[in-house]
Amino acid sequence: MDFNFNSPLLENAVSELSKLPGIGSKTALRLALHLLRQDKEVADALGKSIIRMREEISYCHRCHNISETPECPICADRKRDQTTVCVVENVKDVITVEATHVHHGLYHVLGGLITPLEGIAPSDIEIDSLVERVKNEGIKEVILALSPTMEGDTTNYYIYRKLSDLPVRVSLLARGLSIGNELEYTDELTLGRSIQDRVLFSDTFHK
Amino acid sequence: MDFNFNSPLLENAVSELSKLPGIGSKTALRLALHLLRQDKEVADALGKSIIRMREEISYCHRCHNISETPECPICADRKRDQTTVCVVENVKDVITVEATHVHHGLYHVLGGLITPLEGIAPSDIEIDSLVERVKNEGIKEVILALSPTMEGDTTNYYIYRKLSDLPVRVSLLARGLSIGNELEYTDELTLGRSIQDRVLFSDTFHK
Repeated sequence: MDFNFNSPLLENAVSELSKLPGIGSKTALRLALHLLRQDKEVADALGKSIIRMREEISYCHRCHNISETPECPICADRKRDQTTVCVVENVKDVITVEATHVHHGLYHVLGGLITPLEGIAPSDIEIDSLVERVKNEGIKEVILALSPTMEGDTTNYYIYRKLSDLPVRVSLLARGLSIGNELEYTDELTLGRSIQDRVLFSDTFHK
Repeated sequence: MDFNFNSPLLENAVSELSKLPGIGSKTALRLALHLLRQDKEVADALGKSIIRMREEISYCHRCHNISETPECPICADRKRDQTTVCVVENVKDVITVEATHVHHGLYHVLGGLITPLEGIAPSDIEIDSLVERVKNEGIKEVILALSPTMEGDTTNYYIYRKLSDLPVRVSLLARGLSIGNELEYTDELTLGRSIQDRVLFSDTFHK
């Protein structure tokens, strides 16, 4: 439908909002009209928070996670295990892994996965810098925490080969049953893998 | 889940974004991380468009539609029929009715519907100003274009009573079948109404 907003300012805000992923023009209009109904401070705070975030956040020179300082708070935290590095695809995965409170080491954000079909080669993501870190930072274990997809597996294998000559343990997140899901609804590949990788029951007591 | 963003700026943007209706904290994070990946100009344009829109748009003193000028472009357009006023609930409904290209008159935005349960009384919405316009602006027809709901019907009836002593025709949007919908799936009330309000087939030829 061709809408006439009778206001270039509204039209502009709707157009900018609808550039966001998953926000169509109808949702954008709903959001803009919502903001028009709020106090000026609400729109002001939202607009400024977006501008400032993009302006002032950059990337950690070590792990490539987002950071407001040259070295991110995780890398800078000397209480964390400096010898264990968890390799993730993107910034969001750092937040997701952190939320488990199980990993106490550092991170390395690849910024993507090797995806030949989309033209993403190993040199387009932060693999060389990972190898450098392993060589220079005394890292003892690299935990591969990429998605269990074709691209994730390809990237895992590529990194594994790159690190094979270095004195570092390369581990992979376990594949298995999702906690809370019925066995019946688990796909065959995952179920098969969970049988192959079964663990001693007594070993699970203190985890 | 309790997320640690490791960046107050990101956290702030996510918190502001998640104040928007229908945007939860996960979507807000996705939007914020998307903006971080774009050029600075993208976040800048979005942020500024929101701030400017809220700052500079206000309301037409005549019809209460949003406007960047004291009188909105629709009211100011002398080519439009100044004697027919379409009464709508909100600003979005003006855009929706305009998109039909069928109404060539003016509008009157109530800013809500009479809703006793939520404490919205007739005096809380722009009914008195509508009556004043009918008295002073030579309006010959008021088209009630409110939603066919309990609140819409209540408001329709209230306005109808308020205008009953004035020399103005008060009309209502037709209720009937939705074009393109199967008869089978039309609810009984609407179907019954469409029978009562049936029109001469020959009258539909030139509409």
